[in-house]
Amino acid sequence: MKRIQGWGNLETDYPVPEPARVYLEKVVGKPHHQKNISIEELIRKIPPTRLSAHPLINTDPEQRLRHARGQSLNDWIDMCDGLVNTFPDGVAYPETDADVRALIEFAQSGNVNLIPYGGGSSVVGHLTPPGEGPPTLSVDMQRMNQLIHLSEENFEATFGAGVNGPQLEAQLKGHGFVLGHFPQSWEYSSLGGWIATRSVGQQSYHYGRIEPLFVKGHLETPAGPMDLPHFPKSAAGPDLRHLVLGSEARLGIITQATMRIRRLPEEEHFYAAFFPNFEIGVEAVRKIAQSELAVSMVRLSDPMETETTFQLSGEEKLVNIAKKGLSLFGHGEERCMLIYGLTGTRAENRLADRQLAHIVRSHQGMLIKFYLGKAWIEKRFLTPYLRNTLWDLGYALDTLETALPWEKLHSGRQAIYHAISHAMEGDNEPVLIFSHISHVYTNGGSMYVTYLFRRSQDPHQTLAHWQKMKGAASQAITALGGTISHQHGVGIDHKPFLSVEKDPLSMQVLKNIIKTVDPEQIMNAGKLIDTD
Amino acid sequence: MKRIQGWGNLETDYPVPEPARVYLEKVVGKPHHQKNISIEELIRKIPPTRLSAHPLINTDPEQRLRHARGQSLNDWIDMCDGLVNTFPDGVAYPETDADVRALIEFAQSGNVNLIPYGGGSSVVGHLTPPGEGPPTLSVDMQRMNQLIHLSEENFEATFGAGVNGPQLEAQLKGHGFVLGHFPQSWEYSSLGGWIATRSVGQQSYHYGRIEPLFVKGHLETPAGPMDLPHFPKSAAGPDLRHLVLGSEARLGIITQATMRIRRLPEEEHFYAAFFPNFEIGVEAVRKIAQSELAVSMVRLSDPMETETTFQLSGEEKLVNIAKKGLSLFGHGEERCMLIYGLTGTRAENRLADRQLAHIVRSHQGMLIKFYLGKAWIEKRFLTPYLRNTLWDLGYALDTLETALPWEKLHSGRQAIYHAISHAMEGDNEPVLIFSHISHVYTNGGSMYVTYLFRRSQDPHQTLAHWQKMKGAASQAITALGGTISHQHGVGIDHKPFLSVEKDPLSMQVLKNIIKTVDPEQIMNAGKLIDTD
Repeated sequence: MKRIQGWGNLETDYPVPEPARVYLEKVVGKPHHQKNISIEELIRKIPPTRLSAHPLINTDPEQRLRHARGQSLNDWIDMCDGLVNTFPDGVAYPETDADVRALIEFAQSGNVNLIPYGGGSSVVGHLTPPGEGPPTLSVDMQRMNQLIHLSEENFEATFGAGVNGPQLEAQLKGHGFVLGHFPQSWEYSSLGGWIATRSVGQQSYHYGRIEPLFVKGHLETPAGPMDLPHFPKSAAGPDLRHLVLGSEARLGIITQATMRIRRLPEEEHFYAAFFPNFEIGVEAVRKIAQSELAVSMVRLSDPMETETTFQLSGEEKLVNIAKKGLSLFGHGEERCMLIYGLTGTRAENRLADRQLAHIVRSHQGMLIKFYLGKAWIEKRFLTPYLRNTLWDLGYALDTLETALPWEKLHSGRQAIYHAISHAMEGDNEPVLIFSHISHVYTNGGSMYVTYLFRRSQDPHQTLAHWQKMKGAASQAITALGGTISHQHGVGIDHKPFLSVEKDPLSMQVLKNIIKTVDPEQIMNAGKLIDTD
Repeated sequence: MKRIQGWGNLETDYPVPEPARVYLEKVVGKPHHQKNISIEELIRKIPPTRLSAHPLINTDPEQRLRHARGQSLNDWIDMCDGLVNTFPDGVAYPETDADVRALIEFAQSGNVNLIPYGGGSSVVGHLTPPGEGPPTLSVDMQRMNQLIHLSEENFEATFGAGVNGPQLEAQLKGHGFVLGHFPQSWEYSSLGGWIATRSVGQQSYHYGRIEPLFVKGHLETPAGPMDLPHFPKSAAGPDLRHLVLGSEARLGIITQATMRIRRLPEEEHFYAAFFPNFEIGVEAVRKIAQSELAVSMVRLSDPMETETTFQLSGEEKLVNIAKKGLSLFGHGEERCMLIYGLTGTRAENRLADRQLAHIVRSHQGMLIKFYLGKAWIEKRFLTPYLRNTLWDLGYALDTLETALPWEKLHSGRQAIYHAISHAMEGDNEPVLIFSHISHVYTNGGSMYVTYLFRRSQDPHQTLAHWQKMKGAASQAITALGGTISHQHGVGIDHKPFLSVEKDPLSMQVLKNIIKTVDPEQIMNAGKLIDTD
């Protein structure tokens, strides 16, 4: 059963080990315990629906509550501390393109705002119903989750766009195939959501971001159906897939997508390496990326994330042995952990591993082939559950991300950290900040920053703290010339910064595209870009 | 000195060997010799300019003649046989963004149609001035050809968009870098042209098509400057680079582009292999693509192209020995040649070569590591000159291309051949048709078809023959579900087929984008899509 408050299902729990509790109290202070508001109280806050009756629409309050928010920190404060004040007026669960078309026609005839709902994992406000204006209908795509066609000859599979990560891979695995798109939200994010937000999986270095995996798609839009063409590649004019990718539902609802798939790999391994400090680690990772080594993932944690990973592992003895070993090797407090993946044939993996080992060693690095890599891959979809237990302990946790050229990754990290901690200085509230470089390209990498602080007894205060830090970090990122999002999208939270990175003419082009497809502005209005 | 009639410079000649002449006479008949119309006669056809004087604009007739056409077969008939009847009214050679802006303002104020000119290598009519309507100004970008910035740390280089292939690689090579974009037109095609037409280089399997190489760009448009953002990757909304890619100058003039570059490879080799027939060859190439072997190129010729390559090599003795060797191995008339490339470190190339050899052998193939691969790479930019000598002998030659899913490559080739030869049946004019698969993806490949026939004594007849065959082939391609162009673009010749592959809503979106950026329709009007 999916949680209404917090991440994931109710059955899964990720306890915080005792040493980690001690560590967090030391770093950010003793937390203030407080209980979440009850579901009953939340339901009492829901106003009557403003939608007229429709056979496809469910107006049950619990359903409306379940579709009210995503997973950003302000979504959590809304849902757990009871600040939530807007709700969809109903939820529909279409099963066919015709159902989706019927819902769009319903919205057009009654001036209703449609918000497609995939897995509910947005962390930038994609799912929040506007506070004023027309009623909102949440269109939950979960029933359109089937493998519609698989071509073993062309390595392509067509799915209903509501399929989530586990469902999708399970359906492919039976045929010996894999898509390989593994964002951390994999358990509760959907194919349509990945496309609409330009999602990136953890092994994008090998499998590619969602963009190159997306071959073609079908959309239902207010202006009618849109069928993207189906070719291996084409030079016949602009590629309109790239308008759908990142469209955040402003152009319609993606109902089907055909994806490039691959044979399941012959073998896969995850290992670790350590570098004496972040700067040297970044140099090594740059060398790996620019040599285009055929590894499947590199993820370089900074010293604070490395230490936090040690603490959260709960393996106190092992960690002490590891630290002693690393310090003998000259790696002290500034040590940085790299997790890397090998996905391919045995010969390919052996070559990539040998090349990587050479780069690691020439950057004062040390390879650790046991435990750490395996622990990471085994827990990679469990880690988001830690946010639940931390929240219950009294800690709020948020993440943000960007991509920067290589030359700015080191200084950019410092600027972002400074912005976040500086934002809280007046409140005398310490923040634990850590980060990793998670996706690398020949011309730069993405930086994924986690910041953790104590929940306040007044949720408005927690929200204010978050707003200060998120705002300061976003400003620092755009001032650096970084993108406001490498993998989460724009939604509401990043909307003010879109015009910093897209020039006025590009913004105008984007607005006019949306107006061409959705003249009445019924599709997720207010998200991504203001079109009024 | 660049030729006005035909391909390339006047200094380079590629003679047709005697056995090849005999072979061609046998296959398509004895040619009708005729001389090209003189340059003086062509110049006499040029009407007075309709442009008002401007310091940046040259109205010299020879300059206007030189910018009147590209390299499609009808362009050749126009320029060599004298059917050319439209000319730009002037030519400008901007040196700065400000010059380009000034030209756009001039066009806006005087209702002038602008046609950007890169290397003049278009084969689909991009450069042809319209027959009626406002005067046309050709904007030749050749002076904007400098390396503006190179980042050794980020593996990026910014160039003026008028830079051609040899200039670009020469400027990078000095720093130890390579772009790796090698279309057959490399000698006379430009960076801006590659971007505007979604060009594909011969080693795209390794280096990527132009799309992933294009990091950011600056355009001057009728609605003002457009600066695409500069990030390693971003999820912040639709990626407008993909509107510029393939825009065929309808959105403005690309003046600068920042490209992903790579270190020059440690080593590079080109080798050949033979398969007993095309169907088996396609299966082998599919296996190579879907195993994602780290080769840098695969190019599979069909039996007719294999035979023609043998004939045109002029190495009669060598060919006879090769044929005998192949027939001992069981390869007869249906044999197909594969050329493949290895580009990387020694260890990477060794592994890829071993993996490829395994696939070749398990598909009844035979590796030939001497002569053929080397001959191909050495002559790859010389081959287009053969068209000049064939033309002078009395043969017209054209190429067309598409991309198809794996399952349709074999039957699709037969359908395209049938369409071309069937189109000429009534005229009792034989055609030599051959092709290769030149770019491969996990979900399909591109097919590049060459067809050769005798020039008629009446150029209108040659043109009519070409129109019949080109039209029939284009219809066969779209009926198959193939793209009207994998690598040449749309221009005029493919324009009627764009709406076959893009649906009505996508066409409307495209039109509205153009109208947003170019409300007065001064940018290469009439190309790519009708926006009236």
